[in-house]
Amino acid sequence: MNKTILLKSRPKGRPETTDFEFKEIEKPTPKDGEVLLRSKYVSVDPYLRGRMRDEKSYVEPFKLDEPIASAVVAEVVESKNEKFKKGDFLTGMMEWKEYQVSDGKGLRKVDSEKAPLSAYLGILGMTGLTAYFGLTTIGEPKEGETLLVSGAAGAVGSVVGQIGKIKGCRVIGIAGSDEKIDLLKDKFDFDAAINYEKTDDMGKAIRDAAPDGVDVYFDNVGGYTLDAAMENINRFGRVVHCGAISLYNETEQPTGPRLETKIVKKSLKLQGFIIRNFEDRFAEGIQQLGSWLKDGKLKYEETIVEGFDEIPQAFIDLFDGKNKGKMVVKVY
Amino acid sequence: MNKTILLKSRPKGRPETTDFEFKEIEKPTPKDGEVLLRSKYVSVDPYLRGRMRDEKSYVEPFKLDEPIASAVVAEVVESKNEKFKKGDFLTGMMEWKEYQVSDGKGLRKVDSEKAPLSAYLGILGMTGLTAYFGLTTIGEPKEGETLLVSGAAGAVGSVVGQIGKIKGCRVIGIAGSDEKIDLLKDKFDFDAAINYEKTDDMGKAIRDAAPDGVDVYFDNVGGYTLDAAMENINRFGRVVHCGAISLYNETEQPTGPRLETKIVKKSLKLQGFIIRNFEDRFAEGIQQLGSWLKDGKLKYEETIVEGFDEIPQAFIDLFDGKNKGKMVVKVY
Repeated sequence: MNKTILLKSRPKGRPETTDFEFKEIEKPTPKDGEVLLRSKYVSVDPYLRGRMRDEKSYVEPFKLDEPIASAVVAEVVESKNEKFKKGDFLTGMMEWKEYQVSDGKGLRKVDSEKAPLSAYLGILGMTGLTAYFGLTTIGEPKEGETLLVSGAAGAVGSVVGQIGKIKGCRVIGIAGSDEKIDLLKDKFDFDAAINYEKTDDMGKAIRDAAPDGVDVYFDNVGGYTLDAAMENINRFGRVVHCGAISLYNETEQPTGPRLETKIVKKSLKLQGFIIRNFEDRFAEGIQQLGSWLKDGKLKYEETIVEGFDEIPQAFIDLFDGKNKGKMVVKVY
Repeated sequence: MNKTILLKSRPKGRPETTDFEFKEIEKPTPKDGEVLLRSKYVSVDPYLRGRMRDEKSYVEPFKLDEPIASAVVAEVVESKNEKFKKGDFLTGMMEWKEYQVSDGKGLRKVDSEKAPLSAYLGILGMTGLTAYFGLTTIGEPKEGETLLVSGAAGAVGSVVGQIGKIKGCRVIGIAGSDEKIDLLKDKFDFDAAINYEKTDDMGKAIRDAAPDGVDVYFDNVGGYTLDAAMENINRFGRVVHCGAISLYNETEQPTGPRLETKIVKKSLKLQGFIIRNFEDRFAEGIQQLGSWLKDGKLKYEETIVEGFDEIPQAFIDLFDGKNKGKMVVKVY
């Protein structure tokens, strides 16, 4: 018995469970040089929405009627590759399948003694690295500056805020529930937090929380939150464009206030990135994140959903902000 | 007899000559440590429009009923400052007056033997430096890349394009008349040029001129030209936000397509600047520009209007693109 999840139709607007199809397939047999992997934890991430569009991009869009892929932690259940043995856990991009074979390329071993396996999909995986490289190389936070983070209770945002604190910033988070606001202040040590569900005037809310203005804005959401941040941005401000989840389900080109005059007058830098750009520095990033984690300077939160069949719904729930920290599906 | 030009009213939309007032004032007498200066060339620049607004900014707005100031080349007609002697020419920020006194702070001597005096307001002044530092430090053009420049026949754009050629780029300019297009191709050696007055679909025009896409966009105009450039921008593209002349006379916040999703997906950098940011490197910039000029690698164009009374109209004409290269008023 082996199951996979295919992209059945390209979502129109918000993804629906009917955009996905479960299919029974054969459990494959590894050839020489291959391993048989059993998916243990599957990462669901907002950026996957982009790959469901049929758009020319530097990453291939997912194909219709073919499996979706994301970061996974899987167990080696049979090995014909001398680099890996039965019982090892590997992580990397894998398909949404219970079982799959791989030649091991692009996969790396993870150590369940050093951190819980799910952490390799979050704080010690893509989202931790995204926070680390985005903030430090583009945001360049300096001691005493004000850092604003949207999607602050999410997998990336919660790490961004904590790194900001390590760098000596005043850190303000934006999130969507009182529970998340408490999490930001109590667990992650943010200096202030704004509940966007209870805020009519985001520009004013930011102004109140950041009376000296915003020096670095780490943006995970885009849209009107970005506009409000830009109302409060300081001269020489940096905007780290990590994501725009508020726009991913838009079906038409969204419009907003033009920023070019402000970008000139305030000497602003707005820069986007995807984590692959930093591929050759992953080891350094994981080393740094692991060391902060060990020293208790970084904490993390996970929302773990159980069961392979729950993967599509867990993905959809991201767009309603149902996760705190990293959303992960535990398969077994 | 001494005349000055005051800001009479803050322009609403496009500036009018009635926003300016000419006033007869006394010719001042220099005190110890001062020089009496006679304005010879006065620079008019689009950015002055911003200072006519009553907006909080890092530069003070011009005050109503007080003189406007811009870059000027002036002759020392009387000196009580040992650093300067009668007959010297100085440049720096000065008021729109025929005669004024100064203690010399912020002014530097220029050499009429090395270059025509007007050049110190253009290619060897703020606009040359703006082109040089904006392109090299933010645009970071690399050999073989495609550089797109708007306002390409203007004081900044024409220099940007030529520096792009020196750096080994394919250079495409956007300007507003056939005469300017000829200038770009024939005098400044641009590889291609687009007349926006004769183009219905700017996105397509850029695509045709830049089949490999745009790696660096040096933007002097903003608005729909920026949108069209963004349709053609390559992964890791850089946008140098130098100005947004198409928006300076807008009376309401203009809107346009949201760029945040594209900024993330294509790992773009959009960065603005004002030339003051590079103040501590001006000597280096003037040295480099002067050396290229001497070697014939840089050419320049000037539109010289004669007469102190023509300053307001010359400024207004910038918004109709009546200048080729640097717009300068020759007072005597």
